[in-house]
Amino acid sequence: MIGEIISIGNELLTGLVVNTNAARIGEVLTRIGCKVQWISSVGDHDTEIASALEKAISRASVVIVTGGLGPTEDDVTVKAVLEVFGCETEFHPEIMEKLESVFRKQGRLLPPCNRKQAFLPKGAELLPNPVGSAFGFIMKKGNTECFFLPGVPSEVDVMMKAYVLPRLKNRKDRLNVQELSLRTFGIPESALGEKLARFSTLFPEIQLGFFPEASGVRLRLLYFGDPHSKISDRFSEAQAFVYEQVGQWIYGTGEETLEQVVGKLLSQKHLTIGIAESCTGGLICNQLTNVSGSSAYVKLGVVAYSNQAKVELLGIPEVILAKHGAVSKETAKAMAEGIRQVGKTDIGLSTTGISGPSGGTEEKPVGLVYIGYVDEKHAVVKQFLFSGDRLWHKARSSYAALDLVRRMVLGIPEE
Amino acid sequence: MIGEIISIGNELLTGLVVNTNAARIGEVLTRIGCKVQWISSVGDHDTEIASALEKAISRASVVIVTGGLGPTEDDVTVKAVLEVFGCETEFHPEIMEKLESVFRKQGRLLPPCNRKQAFLPKGAELLPNPVGSAFGFIMKKGNTECFFLPGVPSEVDVMMKAYVLPRLKNRKDRLNVQELSLRTFGIPESALGEKLARFSTLFPEIQLGFFPEASGVRLRLLYFGDPHSKISDRFSEAQAFVYEQVGQWIYGTGEETLEQVVGKLLSQKHLTIGIAESCTGGLICNQLTNVSGSSAYVKLGVVAYSNQAKVELLGIPEVILAKHGAVSKETAKAMAEGIRQVGKTDIGLSTTGISGPSGGTEEKPVGLVYIGYVDEKHAVVKQFLFSGDRLWHKARSSYAALDLVRRMVLGIPEE
Repeated sequence: MIGEIISIGNELLTGLVVNTNAARIGEVLTRIGCKVQWISSVGDHDTEIASALEKAISRASVVIVTGGLGPTEDDVTVKAVLEVFGCETEFHPEIMEKLESVFRKQGRLLPPCNRKQAFLPKGAELLPNPVGSAFGFIMKKGNTECFFLPGVPSEVDVMMKAYVLPRLKNRKDRLNVQELSLRTFGIPESALGEKLARFSTLFPEIQLGFFPEASGVRLRLLYFGDPHSKISDRFSEAQAFVYEQVGQWIYGTGEETLEQVVGKLLSQKHLTIGIAESCTGGLICNQLTNVSGSSAYVKLGVVAYSNQAKVELLGIPEVILAKHGAVSKETAKAMAEGIRQVGKTDIGLSTTGISGPSGGTEEKPVGLVYIGYVDEKHAVVKQFLFSGDRLWHKARSSYAALDLVRRMVLGIPEE
Repeated sequence: MIGEIISIGNELLTGLVVNTNAARIGEVLTRIGCKVQWISSVGDHDTEIASALEKAISRASVVIVTGGLGPTEDDVTVKAVLEVFGCETEFHPEIMEKLESVFRKQGRLLPPCNRKQAFLPKGAELLPNPVGSAFGFIMKKGNTECFFLPGVPSEVDVMMKAYVLPRLKNRKDRLNVQELSLRTFGIPESALGEKLARFSTLFPEIQLGFFPEASGVRLRLLYFGDPHSKISDRFSEAQAFVYEQVGQWIYGTGEETLEQVVGKLLSQKHLTIGIAESCTGGLICNQLTNVSGSSAYVKLGVVAYSNQAKVELLGIPEVILAKHGAVSKETAKAMAEGIRQVGKTDIGLSTTGISGPSGGTEEKPVGLVYIGYVDEKHAVVKQFLFSGDRLWHKARSSYAALDLVRRMVLGIPEE
C-alpha cells in the first residue's frame, strides 16, 4: 500500500502556512501500514491540481488530497477532479440541506457562492464532515482510492480517523509496520550515535533515526515489511538493545512529553511542586500546567525577574544576591528553598541564568543557567551553558529543569 | 521567475518532521519576486529524487533542493543529480580539507563514509557551508538554476541568505511582489470578512487572505505582477482601505507578535507590569519574557494555582474566594490589584478560569475565563468563553490578556 498526499493552497507555497496537515496524515498512514512516498503542495489552480492528482494516481494506491473544497472562487479541487476523472458534477440535496441548516442556525440565508459545495463529481462517495460544513468524498481509479478532504487541520484529523483509516485497515495490501519513538534528554546526538553505532549491523532491517529537538534527541525505530513478514521479536530485541545502551537517558515513548512524564511521577508519588523562575520567565510553570490534572501537584510558581521579587516573595537573603549575584549557584539554591517554604510544597525547583541576547559578561556569559532542586532530603544545583538564541535557552533550561525533577524523583544518578 | 522546492527525507513522509524548511524557503522566495508553484517531499531514494528534479526543471526556472547531502548511505541526492544531468562526479580537495579540519578540531580522523561528501557532480558551482560541514552546490540546465542545500534548517536559512537570494535578486525575470501581513485580535474571521467584503471588487488585482491563529486572524495582502507593473500606489490604497475598515483590531504587521507590541508600548511609556495567573499557568509571563529586554518592564509573575497561593502571595481576602469562588470577576480583580501591590508595578494583570478538560459546571463551564487589568486609574475585568481544548484556552486567554493591556495603555475603547 503506497500512499501520496496532495496539499492544496497558495498559502502553503508562499510560506504563510506550514504544512502540518501532510505531516499528521503521513504519520497516521505510516502507522497503519501505508508507505507514503510523495507529498506535493500545489496552489489553487485546477491545472496544477489535476497534474498532481494524475501523477499521484499513477504512482500510489492511496491518495489523500486536502483543501480547495470551500465556497470561494479559489476552491477548485472539484474542477480538477472533473478533468482527471472525465466526469460531470452531480447535485447532492443532502449537502444543500446541511449547508442551509448551518447558516439557518446563524440566522442567515445560504450565500449563492456556497451552493457550489453541493455539486460533487459524479460517482463520488460522500464523506459527511462531523465538524465543518464542507463535505469530503472518495473517487476510485483502477486500484487507487482517492480521498478528498477539506483543508482545515481539525477537520482533516477527524475525517482521517472517521473514514480514511477504518477503510484502509480493511485493505489487503497493508504493509507490516513497526514503529517506536524513544525520547531522550541530556545526551547529544553524536554521543547517542556512538553508543548505538552497532545498531545498523545488528538490525539491518530496522531503520534507526536521530531527531534533535529542544526536548532532547528523539530516536525512532521503523520497520516496513510485506504483510506476512514476522518482525515483532526482532523489533523487541532491537528495542532492548537501545534501552541497554542508552536507557538512562530515555524519559518517554511516542508522543509523551517530559512534562507529562514528570506530572505522572508527581501524581503517583503524591508530591507537590513549587517553581521559582528567573531566566525561564514562566515557561516551566506553563509547560507543567499544559498537562491536564496538573493542579493536583503544581501549587504555585513565582517569576522573580527583579531582585526585589526574589527577596520579598521568595525570602532570599539580600546578602546572597549581593555576594554571589542573581545568576549564581547560591541564588538558585536559595530560590528553590524559598519557593518550597513559601508554597509548603514537597519539591522546590528554580532557574536563574542569562538568556540574552544582552546581559552577558566574560565570567557569566549568555547561555549560563543554574537550576536548583530541593526536596526533604536533597538540595542540588546544576550548571549549564546553552548555545543558541533566547528562546532556545529558555526551552533548553526548562527541559533540563524538568529532567532534573524526573531524575531526582526516580533516584537516577547523573552520568 | 517560477520556483519549485524539493524537500528530501523519509522523516518528512512518515510525519516525524514537519516541513518547515519549505515554508521558510517559500516565504523568502515570494518576497524577492519568485512565484513558488510546487513543493514536493520525497524520500531518500535516488530514483524518486531524480524524478522530482526532472519535473521541477521542466516547470520552473528556480529549483531549491534541500537534504540528502550528508555522509550516510541514505544521502543520495548527488546520485540523483548524476542521473538527471548525465554527468560524473568530480573530487574537490577543498571540501576534503574542510571536512578533515572539522574532525581534527574534535580530535578525530575523518571517517571513511564522510569522504563521499567531497565528490560532487561535474560542473557544480560550490556553495561553502558557513555553519555546517556539508557543502551546497548549483547546477544549471537550460534557463533553470538548481540550488542544492543541506537539510538542517539553520543551514538552509544561512545559505539561502548568503547565496540563493543575492543571486536571484540579479535575475531579470523577477516578478514585482508586494506583500503585507496585518495581525488582528478580538474579531472573528467571519466578521472581518463582512467588513472587508468590498475588497475584492475594489482591488481585484490584490489577493486578500484570512488566516486564523491563536494570536488572532492574520490578514495578508499579496500582489504578483510582471516586473514593470506599477502597483505601489494601488497597494497603499488597499492597505488604507483595510485600516479604515478594521484598523482598531490591527495590533501589528509582518512577524510582529502581540507580546512584542505590548513590550514596546510598556518600554516607551516606562510602565512596569506584574502578572498573576491562574488558568494560564505562567503562559502570559512566558510570552512577555520571550521578548528580549523584557526585564525592564516585567517585574514579577505569580502562578497562583492553589487558593492558598492566592491568599498568601497575592493577599486576596479569603471572603472573596469563599463568596464568589476562585473563578469569578471579583477574584480576577483582587488578583490584579494584589500583584500590583506586591510588585509595586504600574500595571497588574490577572487571569482566572477553567481550562478543562475537567472542572467545569453548568454555571461555570470549561472555557470560562476572567481577565483583570488594574492601573493607577483603571480597574477592568473582562469575561470570555473560549471553545477548544486546554492548550487553546490557555493560548486564547493569554492573547486576550495581552490585547487588553495594549488597548488600555493606548486608550482604545472596546467595541
